[in-house]
Amino acid sequence: MRTQVGIVGAGPAGLLLSHMLYLSGIESIIIESRSQAEIEQTIRAGVLEQSTVDLMTEIGAGDRMKREGFVHGGFELRFAGHGHRIDLQNLANGRTITVYPQHEVLKDLIALRLRTGGQIHFEAKATSIDGLTSDQPVVRFITKQGETRELSCDFVAGCDGGYGASRAAIPEDLVRRDYFRVYPFGWFGILAKAPPSSEELIYAHHDRGFALISTRSPNIQRMYFQCAPTDSVDNWSDDRIWNELQTRVGGDGFELKTGPIFQKGIIPLRSFVCEPMQHGRLFLAGDAAHSVPPTGAKGLNLAAADVYVLARALASYYAKRSTTLLDAYSSTALRRVWRAQHFSWWMTSMLHWFHEGTEFDLKRQLAELELVTSSKAAATTLAENYVGMPLA
Amino acid sequence: MRTQVGIVGAGPAGLLLSHMLYLSGIESIIIESRSQAEIEQTIRAGVLEQSTVDLMTEIGAGDRMKREGFVHGGFELRFAGHGHRIDLQNLANGRTITVYPQHEVLKDLIALRLRTGGQIHFEAKATSIDGLTSDQPVVRFITKQGETRELSCDFVAGCDGGYGASRAAIPEDLVRRDYFRVYPFGWFGILAKAPPSSEELIYAHHDRGFALISTRSPNIQRMYFQCAPTDSVDNWSDDRIWNELQTRVGGDGFELKTGPIFQKGIIPLRSFVCEPMQHGRLFLAGDAAHSVPPTGAKGLNLAAADVYVLARALASYYAKRSTTLLDAYSSTALRRVWRAQHFSWWMTSMLHWFHEGTEFDLKRQLAELELVTSSKAAATTLAENYVGMPLA
Repeated sequence: MRTQVGIVGAGPAGLLLSHMLYLSGIESIIIESRSQAEIEQTIRAGVLEQSTVDLMTEIGAGDRMKREGFVHGGFELRFAGHGHRIDLQNLANGRTITVYPQHEVLKDLIALRLRTGGQIHFEAKATSIDGLTSDQPVVRFITKQGETRELSCDFVAGCDGGYGASRAAIPEDLVRRDYFRVYPFGWFGILAKAPPSSEELIYAHHDRGFALISTRSPNIQRMYFQCAPTDSVDNWSDDRIWNELQTRVGGDGFELKTGPIFQKGIIPLRSFVCEPMQHGRLFLAGDAAHSVPPTGAKGLNLAAADVYVLARALASYYAKRSTTLLDAYSSTALRRVWRAQHFSWWMTSMLHWFHEGTEFDLKRQLAELELVTSSKAAATTLAENYVGMPLA
Repeated sequence: MRTQVGIVGAGPAGLLLSHMLYLSGIESIIIESRSQAEIEQTIRAGVLEQSTVDLMTEIGAGDRMKREGFVHGGFELRFAGHGHRIDLQNLANGRTITVYPQHEVLKDLIALRLRTGGQIHFEAKATSIDGLTSDQPVVRFITKQGETRELSCDFVAGCDGGYGASRAAIPEDLVRRDYFRVYPFGWFGILAKAPPSSEELIYAHHDRGFALISTRSPNIQRMYFQCAPTDSVDNWSDDRIWNELQTRVGGDGFELKTGPIFQKGIIPLRSFVCEPMQHGRLFLAGDAAHSVPPTGAKGLNLAAADVYVLARALASYYAKRSTTLLDAYSSTALRRVWRAQHFSWWMTSMLHWFHEGTEFDLKRQLAELELVTSSKAAATTLAENYVGMPLA
């Protein structure tokens, strides 16, 4: 089997890349270990930056997002019992965010890819990626039927997330350097059948810890609260969860709208970057190269930004046989990655209770929250980073 | 002995307050444990905010400062081997800082106070402050000659720094709450006979740690570098010091101008706030109520800001017998104190190497430094905080 660009992984990065290459007349084949149903049902992040929305629209994948997504012109920071709106649209030059769940993005991209003749091998597990420093790298994989296959290609795009084969194919230490930080807490996340409690997202600081009130649809709400990473969902009845959330976001008479909780889970918070994002003919994109704590809502958006840079670089190669943009891919993408890493750390450190912290740190956080809700310059920095920088 | 306002401490807060009260026709007496010579020779901070300069000028203490101080319209952030100027003046609406050492400020204020008939009891140690919740508090002190005396007054201003009697006179826990944080490093500071290495201050980030290039006069330079809090000046020869400083600020061909080092010392870095800043008829100002790590250059300026609020409140009391401003003193002053605490923590955490940190944190710091030197909004936040908010 042979193609121009072999893509490992049918997450947002792999699917977007495959379709953008198609639009430039470049062939690709996607190898994906999960089933189509699993991909389309796993609920993940849901905040799209303006530039991600623009990109989806530009490549023809934006119709349902435009109809069903919710455009938010701001969000609320709650602390010390009061809410303060961050007016993203006014502060960030008209740019907004769109709340549209990642699995809906994936459904749209898969449908688009299949409709335009794209080849996606679901339930096909990549086992090795070889010949990265040759002209013809090879991806070996095992099909759904258990057969071992080889995909020869000009380039490999590693879009298979934090635990895939791609990153591991870059020799550690010799070439690759991993940077990471683990936060001493997790997020307890729930999905509940309830009406929205707020028109916009709420990020809450409380001395019991952070809470986030988000939404998935008019009937399904997504909420999180900071917990110990070692906590267990078994410790939390629905009543206890609603009490905890209400306590953390309370004040000014604000009341959460509750309902049956149909999913509970705890996610760890960590920051990760691998450098460089390229080795020979392998290019990493999205979670394969980096992950961010969800506080900044940057994960999916960084994947889209990586792909934007990579697709242009590959198009330039096939059009002009120029490797200039390919050679610059890693450093170009990493600038945005580190910006997002700092922003995600900033949001996380400003809003969470750190157990190694002191009462001083709690007051210092409140002073920072006062600053970002009262200083035009500080609010602008927050808003510009939250909506994301333009891609070009 | 009796006066209207008994002031404990002849540092910047006590001296400024005494003179501002005098200008409002209010009597005060200052009790100070050190000698005049010691106060005038102890070299401390040297960066005055615009509002501190304005206040000094307004009360008639600004003549020598105007002649001998250096107005800086910006400073340099150096990281990853390059310098980046923060244009304070343009970013912060024309406001600047003035480099004029604290002991020169103190000389000017003492001379002014003595010239206008002010009473300062040097080498007089306050031993207790009583009757705070009565109408006539009493400061007991031991004179230079060893006599025990009492100063009765309407109000006591506690301006005697972090280790004085004033803060201790506020009952801990019952009334007073102390917030603090100790940083896991110190600053190794030197004074050297050398010409300035730079026209403006340099704040340097380096993977060996922070460094600061400052100046005292055309012939005397003040420099610092981050060190372990347990380090000793005996470990550092002049050669080793200059090598370390040059390494941390190097790049772009920048060379420090060296010379004989005539003072070496290590200072710890900590953040401290006591709340409230008032108890009955005792009002704390300056270091008695708070201290900041020197990274934000806020110590002396916070003292001046406290005094500005307190002097107006006392003037309002004596003019109209209104306690409204006095009652609001603590909360008014604390808003600026916590703003400065956050800013000082921000500068410290952005520029220092934390040993509990990871390589990730080093890269995250560089991303933040990139932000504040490339984003107008982020640079404005930095500049506005560095030059300081207006007092009124």
